[in-house]
Amino acid sequence: MLIDAHSYNLTTNETMKYSTIVIGDELLIGQVTDTNSGWIARHLAPFGWEHQSVRVIADDFNEITHAIDETFAKSNLVLMTGGLGPTKDDITKATLCQYFGGEMVLNEDVKRNVDEMFARRGIPMNRLTASQAMVPSSCQVIQNEVGTAPIMWFERDGKVLVSMPGVPIETQTMMERAVIPQLVKHFHSDVDIEYRTFVVVDYAESALAEKLEQFEHEMPNYIHLAYLPAQGVIRLRLTGTHSNRELLNCDMERLSKQLHKLLGKSIIADADKPLSQIVGERLRELGLTMSTAESCTGGNIAHVITAIAGSSDYFMGSVVSYSNDVKHRVLGVNDTALEMCGAVSQPVVEQMAYGACQVARTDCAVATSGVAGPGGGTPDKPVGTVWIAAKVGDVVTSKCFHFTGSRTQIIDRATTHALIMLLKLLS
Amino acid sequence: MLIDAHSYNLTTNETMKYSTIVIGDELLIGQVTDTNSGWIARHLAPFGWEHQSVRVIADDFNEITHAIDETFAKSNLVLMTGGLGPTKDDITKATLCQYFGGEMVLNEDVKRNVDEMFARRGIPMNRLTASQAMVPSSCQVIQNEVGTAPIMWFERDGKVLVSMPGVPIETQTMMERAVIPQLVKHFHSDVDIEYRTFVVVDYAESALAEKLEQFEHEMPNYIHLAYLPAQGVIRLRLTGTHSNRELLNCDMERLSKQLHKLLGKSIIADADKPLSQIVGERLRELGLTMSTAESCTGGNIAHVITAIAGSSDYFMGSVVSYSNDVKHRVLGVNDTALEMCGAVSQPVVEQMAYGACQVARTDCAVATSGVAGPGGGTPDKPVGTVWIAAKVGDVVTSKCFHFTGSRTQIIDRATTHALIMLLKLLS
Repeated sequence: MLIDAHSYNLTTNETMKYSTIVIGDELLIGQVTDTNSGWIARHLAPFGWEHQSVRVIADDFNEITHAIDETFAKSNLVLMTGGLGPTKDDITKATLCQYFGGEMVLNEDVKRNVDEMFARRGIPMNRLTASQAMVPSSCQVIQNEVGTAPIMWFERDGKVLVSMPGVPIETQTMMERAVIPQLVKHFHSDVDIEYRTFVVVDYAESALAEKLEQFEHEMPNYIHLAYLPAQGVIRLRLTGTHSNRELLNCDMERLSKQLHKLLGKSIIADADKPLSQIVGERLRELGLTMSTAESCTGGNIAHVITAIAGSSDYFMGSVVSYSNDVKHRVLGVNDTALEMCGAVSQPVVEQMAYGACQVARTDCAVATSGVAGPGGGTPDKPVGTVWIAAKVGDVVTSKCFHFTGSRTQIIDRATTHALIMLLKLLS
Repeated sequence: MLIDAHSYNLTTNETMKYSTIVIGDELLIGQVTDTNSGWIARHLAPFGWEHQSVRVIADDFNEITHAIDETFAKSNLVLMTGGLGPTKDDITKATLCQYFGGEMVLNEDVKRNVDEMFARRGIPMNRLTASQAMVPSSCQVIQNEVGTAPIMWFERDGKVLVSMPGVPIETQTMMERAVIPQLVKHFHSDVDIEYRTFVVVDYAESALAEKLEQFEHEMPNYIHLAYLPAQGVIRLRLTGTHSNRELLNCDMERLSKQLHKLLGKSIIADADKPLSQIVGERLRELGLTMSTAESCTGGNIAHVITAIAGSSDYFMGSVVSYSNDVKHRVLGVNDTALEMCGAVSQPVVEQMAYGACQVARTDCAVATSGVAGPGGGTPDKPVGTVWIAAKVGDVVTSKCFHFTGSRTQIIDRATTHALIMLLKLLS
């Protein structure tokens, strides 16, 4: 096979480096956000390969050619996504054919794949789609099992460029099934990289940095500490790079223990997990169930909880009570509280949490009521005012927050803090 | 003022070009997704400036220097985000100081801003935060009104580099308040760009391309058509570039009308709006209210509906019924249907839609029940099987879908198709 013949051995001191090129005008005008490069990075990290750069460029011959030249100069591998749809605005394939040489040829396997894909969907094949079966003769084709655009593997002097479609599900599925295994076979890296991530609450970034100053000062120079703050949580990431895997592992263990000793219960998780997953794991350990009652978060807490596979084991349901009528009739919030204190108040949010436990028959609940904006603010309850309650068994805590930012940011922040409040009650 | 002295006039034939550099190891390892570059692109589009490229690079002196060299060679403007936090891993400021010359100096205005920001939050100022007041003497400082890291404006030969923090809310707020107005003053562009976007349903990308082949063939060469498919919807984008604004506008109008004539009701919106917003506008026009009953989508439909400002006018609430108990007791789904047909079935999802209208007292509802996976699939109801119902007044439609992809993708697709089904009933 082509790939075995050219497999590429890195020397001990050479880290395997790769770059990503993302093609598409729609990304440059901000209509679509690139999530492929992040997915690729997370899935190649275990092999210790260094992600050098991401470039987002236009569907343009010169731009693509120039980007390949520049990334090949620094990387052993270039992963390219996008620019492979059936419509006219895609010129990636023609550019790659000119870059790597050869001519456009009909690939019978791709044609069969496109035919089958269309037959399965019951859509008639047309001329434009048929053109997807044309590929540069200089590439090795990897069949796209979940779409029609073929994946193309090019080589030059042992370096590799893989061109994949822009549709995330196609790139991700085929990376896992075929591209990653083939890459690992092709490149043999001797340098190990190890990551450890800690999810930290209770600290502002600068206060945490001050707390960890001595710790950072004493770290070996091949280990690096990064602060990744996002919405009330800071992710601390230790990255170590060394050719001696055992030494590296031992040092990473030691530093992890030190961090736990320094930060205690402020470390709420030892891995880069979403809060919703941490909540789910805690509930599962304790054998408890939960529900939500949501006003300003509008179902987002239920959404992040249920985004976790297996959440039906501990999550029973939610009531999104946007109207006061639903708060009263479904969740049993009393009219007096709604009239006297308003919907955004401590008694209402606590009664909502009780109501959620009753309606969904759960042990725990979180509830939110606030002003997500941009309208609806008043002098004493401006936009960003959010009451949050968490309930575990008979214990209820509630707190008023004043968030800043857009509607989406306020909803996200309220969601995060509701989960943190529940986690604290559960620990 | 510095910026007026050096304002930069583009000639008629020169398009103003800019690039974005996004700095941060956390982006390269896929822990954080860059949303700043897309935001910037959407907000600079009205000025007709061409976004040349986005580069995501590491917090590293050589990488940053090299990226500035390369982007300055092709662009009049470089917008840089990230790498400005108070902690050690940020070296952007030192690199910029070396690149543009001068030395690091204390900026009294920034110091006052940092002091005030901390006083307002009731957090004591520390040494690390104090270092944020040090800036290169070669830059003009733009005060960050919503954070502590200063925004820095550098110039070289009339070209501009603006360095901004990585936190989206800070960059976005300060771009709107200060950076964009200052940029528009500095660069005077004579070439107009106009965009029109159409949201299209009912077509696969290749079928739509075939339908529009003649239309595309007859378009003037300064207008370009792009296909942006995403989850059951294709966004068609017309982009026109011309120095004669009136001619351009007239042509764009004419082509828009042609598209409407060709595609009829398959165009569900004339602007790049999320489906949830289109649904909201339709409900508002018709004076109707809605609710949701969600099993496999777990609150995501309620979430996307309520992400739209003002949705409380037409959205009353939701029941997320993950457990059958909640489906039965709260939504009134009968036990026989649950036992005979299973939760993922036509009678159950239709009863859920009825139940949502009753519980939340609304005119319309959507309901979902399906297998989001990765577990829970059976031979006759594999992962991806989702029943969706939409109800408007007395009319109910329901349909069974077979989605592919991850749990998140199945949830997103079910959400999209629920909204499309509701929109079709409303039109």
